[in-house]
Amino acid sequence: MTRVPKLLLLFLLIGLCLLIGFLTTDGCKAPEPPQKAAVPEKAVLVIHGGAGAPPANELPQAERKKYKKVLEDALRQGYKALQKEKGTSLDAVVAAIEVMENSGVFNAGKGAVFTHEGRNELDASIMEGKHKMAGAVAGVTRLKNPIRAARAVMEKSPHVLMIGDGAERFALSLKVVEEVNPVYFWTEERWKELQKALKKEEMQKNQGKRLPRKAGATDRHFGTVGAVALDNNGNLAAGTSTGGLTNKRHGRVGDSPIIGAGTYADNQACAVSCTGHGETFIRHAVAHDIAARVQYKRLSVARAVAEVLDGIPEEKDGLGGVIALDRQGSWAMHYDQHTDGMFRGCITKDGKISLWIYQDKE
Amino acid sequence: MTRVPKLLLLFLLIGLCLLIGFLTTDGCKAPEPPQKAAVPEKAVLVIHGGAGAPPANELPQAERKKYKKVLEDALRQGYKALQKEKGTSLDAVVAAIEVMENSGVFNAGKGAVFTHEGRNELDASIMEGKHKMAGAVAGVTRLKNPIRAARAVMEKSPHVLMIGDGAERFALSLKVVEEVNPVYFWTEERWKELQKALKKEEMQKNQGKRLPRKAGATDRHFGTVGAVALDNNGNLAAGTSTGGLTNKRHGRVGDSPIIGAGTYADNQACAVSCTGHGETFIRHAVAHDIAARVQYKRLSVARAVAEVLDGIPEEKDGLGGVIALDRQGSWAMHYDQHTDGMFRGCITKDGKISLWIYQDKE
Repeated sequence: MTRVPKLLLLFLLIGLCLLIGFLTTDGCKAPEPPQKAAVPEKAVLVIHGGAGAPPANELPQAERKKYKKVLEDALRQGYKALQKEKGTSLDAVVAAIEVMENSGVFNAGKGAVFTHEGRNELDASIMEGKHKMAGAVAGVTRLKNPIRAARAVMEKSPHVLMIGDGAERFALSLKVVEEVNPVYFWTEERWKELQKALKKEEMQKNQGKRLPRKAGATDRHFGTVGAVALDNNGNLAAGTSTGGLTNKRHGRVGDSPIIGAGTYADNQACAVSCTGHGETFIRHAVAHDIAARVQYKRLSVARAVAEVLDGIPEEKDGLGGVIALDRQGSWAMHYDQHTDGMFRGCITKDGKISLWIYQDKE
Repeated sequence: MTRVPKLLLLFLLIGLCLLIGFLTTDGCKAPEPPQKAAVPEKAVLVIHGGAGAPPANELPQAERKKYKKVLEDALRQGYKALQKEKGTSLDAVVAAIEVMENSGVFNAGKGAVFTHEGRNELDASIMEGKHKMAGAVAGVTRLKNPIRAARAVMEKSPHVLMIGDGAERFALSLKVVEEVNPVYFWTEERWKELQKALKKEEMQKNQGKRLPRKAGATDRHFGTVGAVALDNNGNLAAGTSTGGLTNKRHGRVGDSPIIGAGTYADNQACAVSCTGHGETFIRHAVAHDIAARVQYKRLSVARAVAEVLDGIPEEKDGLGGVIALDRQGSWAMHYDQHTDGMFRGCITKDGKISLWIYQDKE
């Protein structure tokens, strides 16, 4: 064998190594989007108040302040829960979501949207990443804080998902959640949204007339609230709570109470909470798919979230968004191009709060 | 540079290539379990009638025949649907599951187990792999064939999951499924199972006495029926239908109607239907996890199914089982070591039927 073929072989091998290396490290991986200096790299609690904020020019400063005040309060309450001696990521998730459920400004708890029949049917779920325990409730109508009921299903029952009357009876029998008259959930804004949606539906039915896609920002208000947290023991948790879709049919359940669709937590991967077009999130098992890509493809949470959302065929009315957090405190917030904004924020280990509604920090 | 270091470099590079190759092809991959000559390698329809068959010595031949007759009939009806000119994998899944729902011998449709309150609350879901469309119903009490209702949710509504009364009203309004008096679902065997379970619960409550784990085979009867199919267009579909768990609490929902937990289909990966301890299947998003490992780790369906089930912490009362099928017709049936048997069968493209209850073909 002469020197030349041996050198050729050497180069071929080096090329092969590079190729294999390239393929196994997720090929043409784009660099992570640069984060501005003001944006913290690590967080202990990340929350959302739903994708589907009105377009930026339709949301006055006074309104923005109202949303941000609730987000900030939720982050503070969640952070306080984490600071307690035995505070867990589950405590933080419940504390943060409860603030948002009680606020009346998001589509969860007080402030939930109305069904076609003018009722409020609420869904929620929670999961922790160490033992992958989970709990969820769907279609409940008289529990003030569905997220508490979800936690009770996880911790006090052998079940994971309970629906309707059975879920209510179970949670109320344990006295872990306050019972309210369903009228508690009535808010003028949501009622008007339903009337608008019903009118639109009627028009479409009677005249066969199609309304423009972006007829009214509120039509696409997905709402939903969610939180992902990391505690001092390195355990992750995720939770989501929602009133669903305005004008949804009686009995319709979206992704929020579905473990693997709207919520997932696994210490081996990450914690995820979703908001948006629930049906699409269920069909693509979005929350679990993000965790699977982090675990099997060894992607960062930011890249896994982007890959999953960008891989779903376009939804003209907006798909929605996701928040995710891993055990290193690396986090991601992402929503699709047809979604105008997502109410969201995070808090770092040393208590620094950041809040966003649109692409820029504001 | 002398010849020796260059050779050394060459060997190092070869070693590196081998190592990378080894790591990226799933490392110390065990060989697929050898299949006996009589077992077909390819199938177009695979079905199950539930994990949790009684121990082999407790199931007389006459009983086995009864189960197998239904399995065979389900395979034939599903196959017939596939043979029709425009027959799809969805048609095959519905046809096969309907036979099992109507048989009275499996825990789905007629033959469903009873809740703690002595009612039947049925769940079902269906999904197709081309567009990943899906439909599901949970907690329905007066629909003869829940799998038909699930298909109607997928095809005739904008929703994926509908529950309880809302799901029933929707399906009945379309006249796609027969309405029955809930008494239709009453069977003597299931009623006796509930009485036994209630008695056991009462004993445990009153005496603080723990009964032996394998107290009665029927206690662990998971039942559930499911099917995965592949049609001439290369499209996959999966479906699952169940009565849930004997003595389950009113409102409890297991994995069967949960897309990603009990059912999943994606032409990029495989079609999956699960049976067993529903709560565990939800928490581990079993159906989607199998699809994710086929897609991201490039495992065979057999290996993905085994990896997922074997990776779940042991359930003393038995975890359950899974059937899966890919676009090449490669299939898998797997159940955990604490499960005595799983009613199951498959049919090949040329109509050859194979049936099993325990490990050996019989």
